[in-house]
Amino acid sequence: MDEGLKVVALGGGHGLYASLSALRRVTSRLTAVVTVADDGGSSGRLRREFGVLPPGDLRMALAALCGDDEWGHTWSEVVQHRFRSDGDLDGHAIGNLLIVALWERLGDTVAGLDWLGRLLGAHGRVLPMSSVPLDIAAEVELDGLVSTVRGQVACALTPGRVRAISLVPEDPPACPEAVEAVLDADWVVFGPGSWFTSVLPHLKVPELAEALHTTRARRLVALNLAPQTGETDGFSPQKHLEVLRQHAPSLEVDVVVADTGVTDDGEELEKAVAGLGGRLVLASVADEDGSPRHDAQRLASVLDEIFRAKR
Amino acid sequence: MDEGLKVVALGGGHGLYASLSALRRVTSRLTAVVTVADDGGSSGRLRREFGVLPPGDLRMALAALCGDDEWGHTWSEVVQHRFRSDGDLDGHAIGNLLIVALWERLGDTVAGLDWLGRLLGAHGRVLPMSSVPLDIAAEVELDGLVSTVRGQVACALTPGRVRAISLVPEDPPACPEAVEAVLDADWVVFGPGSWFTSVLPHLKVPELAEALHTTRARRLVALNLAPQTGETDGFSPQKHLEVLRQHAPSLEVDVVVADTGVTDDGEELEKAVAGLGGRLVLASVADEDGSPRHDAQRLASVLDEIFRAKR
Repeated sequence: MDEGLKVVALGGGHGLYASLSALRRVTSRLTAVVTVADDGGSSGRLRREFGVLPPGDLRMALAALCGDDEWGHTWSEVVQHRFRSDGDLDGHAIGNLLIVALWERLGDTVAGLDWLGRLLGAHGRVLPMSSVPLDIAAEVELDGLVSTVRGQVACALTPGRVRAISLVPEDPPACPEAVEAVLDADWVVFGPGSWFTSVLPHLKVPELAEALHTTRARRLVALNLAPQTGETDGFSPQKHLEVLRQHAPSLEVDVVVADTGVTDDGEELEKAVAGLGGRLVLASVADEDGSPRHDAQRLASVLDEIFRAKR
Repeated sequence: MDEGLKVVALGGGHGLYASLSALRRVTSRLTAVVTVADDGGSSGRLRREFGVLPPGDLRMALAALCGDDEWGHTWSEVVQHRFRSDGDLDGHAIGNLLIVALWERLGDTVAGLDWLGRLLGAHGRVLPMSSVPLDIAAEVELDGLVSTVRGQVACALTPGRVRAISLVPEDPPACPEAVEAVLDADWVVFGPGSWFTSVLPHLKVPELAEALHTTRARRLVALNLAPQTGETDGFSPQKHLEVLRQHAPSLEVDVVVADTGVTDDGEELEKAVAGLGGRLVLASVADEDGSPRHDAQRLASVLDEIFRAKR
């Protein structure tokens, strides 16, 4: 592990959980910057009931960073626990409720997350990308017609093909600590994750996007192992990168990591990566069981090697 | 502080919070044994939704024992935090929800409470008096008619005069760790608190009542500062002791602590205490502001002196 390497991971949901599970093995100076546009499930309900940031992806990121001892594992399992009942609490994750309580009690979003991080003995810090709750608006094409779909759930479930996303409000304030972390990083890591609703939104928060463009950090993109039903049906790896470029035309990428299984045409992908100014690293990073999940140890080894080579 | 003195405090709600706030200054070997018959508010809802013990009084007892540092104070404030909204979570204390999550995740009532105690850095242990949720049934007299009222809320609010309580189920299993703590104690402390619904129920759990009778520990009763509207309207201090005796006729009491303000007739009270086999300690233990609350430091000094004299 490189104790000194400062890494920022961008994303949300299960994809971010995967990148953090790998990155925590690579560095102890890790910051997650999390999408706050979820409007479904427990997070959506809390957002509507209290007007707070949707806490679910923040909770999951913190759980991914939990301490290695019994304390960390137990509290991580507890905060991930989801109530099942016929009553009011059905579907709520207790960690989401705890985050809202911390926010209400402390009156400070980042302090609340830091306290939960201390409870979990988290190996790193978790920050929201914006200090206000966001909605994602997607430009969607269906049968030749283009329309706009609003909300993360709607975007993820649309039968149409998502072409681009924007945020509502359009010019949300970035979380200042997140901007600082990006500017101060050695590496920033995009993905894996829901491409339109978790990975690209960061590029639509103006101050954060500016920091991502101007930081001295190197930029790495971790591609998904498979297209995502609804959001990226039929998308090739190249198409993922094309969409990234379309949302941030002047963003230069240093490295793209893809699993060896994602393409039969390495040349096409290599060309797409070169178009972003970077190099392609093809490696075996998928779970052995064939599911479209990253193996934390494999991804960690590949990232570690990449980071070391570039020092 | 007497590090070695083992003290068990019996009660529930705000009264137990008061005795624990005092006792934590007197000993570090403190166990609270808490009534689990609440059926109102957040606790009542959780009990009905999940079939669990009502967690509220357990949470409050743990908060009373929180660590003295920033960590303990912050987490204590957080677990005591109550949601206010127009939605499903209105009225729930986050600590109650956290206790239920710990119980569901760990599958063990006492282990769940111990984990919350560790989170708070609690100075002592909090145990339920029974391992199953209970209901209180009160024999109530109104206009010469005697009827039975069921449920803690109903008992506390009845316009009638409560004469005696029993439990439903009648023969609930005691929490084994609570029985052990009583048998192993140097002192057991009854009250202050809601006399019928928080202090007396312990004497109606058979195994716990037996332990309270046979323990080698000395027994202390801390009387309330004022009668409680609904439950003990117009009750003199002597009447409180009479009701105690009625619920446990062979229980001997070593010391009764009462505030100097509770009686104009110390002789009558002294006689009632002698009837239980004990001695009366009249002392200034109320809050200076005149409210019917115990002052933690004053009560602690008095208890400390009593405990030292009896060693």
